[in-house]
Amino acid sequence: MSQLQRITIQPSQLQENLLLFTPQQQHYLVRVLRLREGEKFIAMDGQGKWWLAELAGEKGQVLEPLEVKTELPVAITLMIGLPKGNGFDDVVRCCTELGVGCILPVLSDRTLLHPSPQKLERWQRIATEAAEQSERAFVPTILEPVAFTNAINSCSATHRYLCEARGDYPHLNTLINNTSGEIVIATGPEGGWTEGEVNIAQAAGFQPVNLGRRILRAVTAPIVALSLISASFEV
Amino acid sequence: MSQLQRITIQPSQLQENLLLFTPQQQHYLVRVLRLREGEKFIAMDGQGKWWLAELAGEKGQVLEPLEVKTELPVAITLMIGLPKGNGFDDVVRCCTELGVGCILPVLSDRTLLHPSPQKLERWQRIATEAAEQSERAFVPTILEPVAFTNAINSCSATHRYLCEARGDYPHLNTLINNTSGEIVIATGPEGGWTEGEVNIAQAAGFQPVNLGRRILRAVTAPIVALSLISASFEV
Repeated sequence: MSQLQRITIQPSQLQENLLLFTPQQQHYLVRVLRLREGEKFIAMDGQGKWWLAELAGEKGQVLEPLEVKTELPVAITLMIGLPKGNGFDDVVRCCTELGVGCILPVLSDRTLLHPSPQKLERWQRIATEAAEQSERAFVPTILEPVAFTNAINSCSATHRYLCEARGDYPHLNTLINNTSGEIVIATGPEGGWTEGEVNIAQAAGFQPVNLGRRILRAVTAPIVALSLISASFEV
Repeated sequence: MSQLQRITIQPSQLQENLLLFTPQQQHYLVRVLRLREGEKFIAMDGQGKWWLAELAGEKGQVLEPLEVKTELPVAITLMIGLPKGNGFDDVVRCCTELGVGCILPVLSDRTLLHPSPQKLERWQRIATEAAEQSERAFVPTILEPVAFTNAINSCSATHRYLCEARGDYPHLNTLINNTSGEIVIATGPEGGWTEGEVNIAQAAGFQPVNLGRRILRAVTAPIVALSLISASFEV
């Protein structure tokens, strides 16, 4: 099973086996995902077509089409304020089962956990096992934890949501629908995001959303969010 | 916080502060929930109105209307093939956060765990803590484990679903919608339901459904199912 980054393209971006990136996609691949010349990645058209490709200068060289039945037709990144204890293990496991493409742990104002580098290996191992058990074609990438503001400001995904239990925000389900482009969904640590963090995220184009009328734990919220997004792309 | 059973009624069943039950509701209250004369319960009209009531002979005596913002307008029972280890603790915790009304553990062909009576107390304590933390108005009821066939055949809920990962069944999200009546959703233990169990459930009026194209663990499936049902009643 390969552990490849994923990117969503418009069908018009594929021309004679070459992928022509937008400046945002270029930035995402090279700066955020740190993909290097010749490294492989997955391109998806958001309508069920998948290609194996490699980075070739400022373009992508398509290597072969892929047949994928258990993967979502969309790239979903979970940006998560690290919960305390071993809660993140459960998040990685469940969200992998639900089809997440990438998990980016963030250190926010209320994050208590500052994980050791060994933790990242552990999480990647959990993701690999969960991907196999759930019969996925690809293993999600677990990125190294970064500061909340950096994560928010370097995000170029088409659809950006921030889950926030308090406040009068629309329900996630009213906004997600079967569109193309990347989705980033952010969920907070115990105690949620601070007001300042919600403001920073809103200024960076994140739409605050709620996940229902009850207060969910930091470990439950990402699983619920992924359940709703996955279902909206599979029904 | 009160720990009361819930039942959904049609508005026409409430006449001058008396609730007139259908034979199925009578059976559910007295045989399944084992409610006794004078014991309190909650009646909901499925449209957001709630009443505190008590059993009075073959009827219900309405005591007072209730104001409830964090409860779902529908009674959801999770029927679950007990997962192994401590997995059921997580299920009770997360499904309580998601608004479940009642959890009925069942002993199925592939159930490995045969819990001690102390376990029931432990689960009820977890449900109580999770209900408080998630700011619910009521604590879900955890019933004593029963045999799969008994649970299936004594079920009189309006909407009955059985989650089954293999086989060509519709996605749960295509079937649930904001209707009145009770919902029962059944999820299997590790390894899922046997073919015989799926047949028994179908014969008893359960609709097999899937929860997406990946294989979910026994602990993840009920959380995903509850996420989808809750969202469909809150959007």
